[in-house]
Amino acid sequence: MLRYDFEKRTGKPLYEYLYECLKKDILSGRLPAKTKLPSKRELARNNSISVKTVMNAYDQLLVEGYITSREKSGYFVAKDIETVPDYQPSFTEYPVLYQEKSWFADFTSNHMVYEMFPFTQWRKVMRDVLSSYDLELVQRAHFQGVGELREAIADYLFRVRGMQVSPECIIIGSGIEYLYSRLMKILPSDAVYAAESPGYKKIPLIYREHGVSWTYTEMDEHGIDIKSLRDSGADVVHVSPEHHYPLGTIMSAPRRQELLEWAAEKLERYIIEDDYDCEFRYHSRMIPTLQSTDKNHRVIYINTFSKTLSPTIRISYMVLPEKLMQRYLDRATFYSNTASSCEQYALANFIRQGYFERQISRLKKHYHERGELLLGIIQGAEKMPVKKITGDDSGTHLLVYLDTELPDTVLKWFAEQMGVHISCLSEFCGQNEAQYQHVMIMNYSDLSEDVLKEAVARLENIFDPEIIL
Amino acid sequence: MLRYDFEKRTGKPLYEYLYECLKKDILSGRLPAKTKLPSKRELARNNSISVKTVMNAYDQLLVEGYITSREKSGYFVAKDIETVPDYQPSFTEYPVLYQEKSWFADFTSNHMVYEMFPFTQWRKVMRDVLSSYDLELVQRAHFQGVGELREAIADYLFRVRGMQVSPECIIIGSGIEYLYSRLMKILPSDAVYAAESPGYKKIPLIYREHGVSWTYTEMDEHGIDIKSLRDSGADVVHVSPEHHYPLGTIMSAPRRQELLEWAAEKLERYIIEDDYDCEFRYHSRMIPTLQSTDKNHRVIYINTFSKTLSPTIRISYMVLPEKLMQRYLDRATFYSNTASSCEQYALANFIRQGYFERQISRLKKHYHERGELLLGIIQGAEKMPVKKITGDDSGTHLLVYLDTELPDTVLKWFAEQMGVHISCLSEFCGQNEAQYQHVMIMNYSDLSEDVLKEAVARLENIFDPEIIL
Repeated sequence: MLRYDFEKRTGKPLYEYLYECLKKDILSGRLPAKTKLPSKRELARNNSISVKTVMNAYDQLLVEGYITSREKSGYFVAKDIETVPDYQPSFTEYPVLYQEKSWFADFTSNHMVYEMFPFTQWRKVMRDVLSSYDLELVQRAHFQGVGELREAIADYLFRVRGMQVSPECIIIGSGIEYLYSRLMKILPSDAVYAAESPGYKKIPLIYREHGVSWTYTEMDEHGIDIKSLRDSGADVVHVSPEHHYPLGTIMSAPRRQELLEWAAEKLERYIIEDDYDCEFRYHSRMIPTLQSTDKNHRVIYINTFSKTLSPTIRISYMVLPEKLMQRYLDRATFYSNTASSCEQYALANFIRQGYFERQISRLKKHYHERGELLLGIIQGAEKMPVKKITGDDSGTHLLVYLDTELPDTVLKWFAEQMGVHISCLSEFCGQNEAQYQHVMIMNYSDLSEDVLKEAVARLENIFDPEIIL
Repeated sequence: MLRYDFEKRTGKPLYEYLYECLKKDILSGRLPAKTKLPSKRELARNNSISVKTVMNAYDQLLVEGYITSREKSGYFVAKDIETVPDYQPSFTEYPVLYQEKSWFADFTSNHMVYEMFPFTQWRKVMRDVLSSYDLELVQRAHFQGVGELREAIADYLFRVRGMQVSPECIIIGSGIEYLYSRLMKILPSDAVYAAESPGYKKIPLIYREHGVSWTYTEMDEHGIDIKSLRDSGADVVHVSPEHHYPLGTIMSAPRRQELLEWAAEKLERYIIEDDYDCEFRYHSRMIPTLQSTDKNHRVIYINTFSKTLSPTIRISYMVLPEKLMQRYLDRATFYSNTASSCEQYALANFIRQGYFERQISRLKKHYHERGELLLGIIQGAEKMPVKKITGDDSGTHLLVYLDTELPDTVLKWFAEQMGVHISCLSEFCGQNEAQYQHVMIMNYSDLSEDVLKEAVARLENIFDPEIIL
C-alpha cells in the first residue's frame, strides 16, 4: 500500500508533493513498469487526502507520460520509462572529455604572472562599482560597450598612443576572436584575407573557422613584404607593426607608408592593426600606430586587456573607421554587447584612476628583467649551439637561433621528453618553413628564475652527445 | 629661443621630457612645418642640458618623422605633420552615430524589471568571490567555462528540469548569439537550418549573419508542423517546445515525439531546443525537455541567464550531445571562454545558495500578476475590438487578436504617433503573413500599472472613430 509522509511536503501543494513522490518512485524503479497503481479513492484513503488531490497528481503524470490509464481497469506505470538511480553529481561520474597537458616548463605561450595581478586595486574598483552603481549594472548596456569605458579607452589611446579616437567608433567585445567574427560580417563577403607567414597562429585558424578565403604573405626584416602582399591578391591584412609575433620585427616607417598606400589604392582594402603588446618596449619608445598615421580610413585598430591585465577579464576592443562603423550600426545592432557590464565599469575606473598604467609599468619592468635573465642563462649555456638571440628589446619572448642539424620536430620531441614544451619558428609559417628552421621561440613571461635555469639546462642536454645521442 | 622648464619633468629622463615638449610644440603648431630647429649645441646651452640629451630627443623625433635633418644645414620640422589642438575628449565632440528611440510604452520587447534584480544577494556573492577567490580570478578559465558553474548548472537542470547532464558537456558563453556562432562551426557546413514561422526574429538574423542556408517551417496549434519541416529539407531546426515565441504554444507530447523521430531518421539531423523562459509557467507544471526525452543524441539544449537574471550578466550555456562535444573539443579548444570568470564563480554560488530559484519564483509571481493585470485592462477597454487574448498562462507577453480592418502597418503607425511601440504577429512571419494579421503582441514584463493603463487607453483611441478616423 502506497503511503507518503505529507508532513515532509514543506509548503508545496498536496497534489504536487504526491506527484513528485510518485514520479520519484517510478523513476527509481520502486514502482516498476506496468505496475497497477491504486485507484484514486484508495490512494486518497490511505494517505487521508482528497480524491481531487490524487486526481490532479495522476493527471500531471498522465500528461508527462509516466503513467497510462486504461478504460475501466485504472492506472498503470507506463511501459518504457527509463529508471534513473537518485542522481548525485560528483566529478568521478563524468567522462572527462578534455585534459590539458602539464609541463615542467611551457615556453609555447605567454601566461600573465598571476601573482602580479593588482588584486588590491582591482578588488577596490570592483567593490566601488558594486556598491556605487545600481541599475547600470543590470540595464542592457550599449551594444558597443559601456560608454564610460569607451571614453576611458579613447583617453588612454590618446595619452599613450597619440591616437585621436571617438568613443563612438570603439566596439568592446569579449575577446579578439569575438571581435574578429563581428568584423568579418561588415567587411565585404568576397574579401580575401592575408595572414603573415611566419605569424600569429590564431589568425589563420580564425579565417578557417569563418570559412573566408585567405592567403599567406611573406615577411622580411622590415615587416610584411608588400610585393608578396600584392601577389597574394588579398584585400584585408592582419599585421602587428609595433611588434610582430613571433619575429619581433618593428615595421619600418617606410614599410608602414607602403602598407598604407597599398590599402589606399582600392576602396575596400583594410589593414587590421593588432597592437597586442605595444606596451612592452624596453629600449626605444613606442612608434605611432598605423591607425593614427592613416588618412584614408583603412585601418581597423584592435587591442585587448586580456594580455595586459588578465585573460579572465574578457574585454577587448576595436576602433573602426567611420565607414565601417556605419555598417556595423546598420547591420549588427541586434547583437547584444558580450562583455560584463560590471567589469566594464570597473575597468573604466581602473584606467581613470591610473591603476592600469601603473600596472603596465610594473609588468614592463618585470618582463624586461625576466627577459634579460633568460638571455643571460642561455648565453651561459655553453653546450647549447646558439648562433644568435633576438627579441630582448620588447615583448615577452626570445628567439634563439641554433646552429644544429636536429630537425625542429626532433628537437621538440627531445624537449618534451624532458618536460619542456617549446615551439619553433617553423611552426608559425604557412609556407617556406625551410628558411625558418632551427629557431626556438621562448615565451618566458610567467616562468620563475629556477624554472628558467632548470629548463635551459635540460634543453642543453639535448646537445650533449654523452647524454642524448 | 626654445626653452623648457625641466623642473616640470617629474622623474622622466631629460631626453624624454625634451622629446615630449618638442613633439607637443610641433603638433600644436607652435613649431610650424619646415621651421629650422636650433642646433643641438644651442638648444643644450639654452636649457643647460647636455648635447647628448638633445641628440637623443632629436633622434627619437627623426625616427618618428616629426623632424628631418639636412646635411650641413641642420634639423627642420617635417613638412606634412597634421597639427592637432590639445585634445580634451568631451561628448559634444563625438559624432553620435546611433541613437535609440524612446517610447512612452514599448511592448515590442521584454526587459527585466530592473528594480527586482536581487542586488543584495548578487552583491553578496560577488563580494564573496572577490575576497575569497584569488588566482582563480585571473588564471585562464577552462575554455568551456568555469567548472563550478557548469556543475551548478548541471544540478539545477536536474532539480528543475529533470535533465541528466554532465558538466563536461556544458559550454558557457557570453550570450546565445555567441553560442550559436560556435555551434554552427561544429554542425555540418552544408546543413540547412530551419526557423519557425512565426518565430523568434533573431534566429533568421543569426542564420543570415553566418551565411548558412536556411528555410522557414510552418507552425500549427500543436507546435512546429512536421510535414512542412520535412518539405523544407532542413537538417537542423530551432524550437522552443516549452513556450513558443511569439505564439506561446506548448508543443504537444505527440508532436515532440514526431519531432524526435524526424531527427533520428538521419545521422546529422539536430534539434536546437531553446528553453529560454521555461521558468515562467503559471497554471501547469513544466513539461520535460526534448533533451531529456531524446535517446538519439540529436538535441542541443540552449538557455541563458540574461533573461532570468539580467541582460548584463552575459552568461548563457548550451548542452551538447557527446558526439558534438567531441567535435567541439577537437576543433574549438583554441577559443578562450568568453564569459567573465568572476561572474561565473559568483553565479555558481548564487545558484548553489538557492538565490537563483528564489529570484525565479519572485519574478514568476510578479510577471503572472502583471500579465493578469494587463489582461484585465484590455478586457476593460470597451472600444478595443478584441476577439480573443491568449498567452496569459505563461511567459511575459500576451497576444491580442483584434477584429479590425486596419492593416498591421497602419495600426503600428497610429500607435507610434501616440508613443506606444507595438509589434504585430505578422512581423514574426517569414511567409504566409496573411493568416497572422490583426494580432498585437504585448510584452509587458517591465511596464508599470500606470503605463499599462495609459498605453491601452491610447491604443483604444485608435479604434475610436471620433478621435482617429
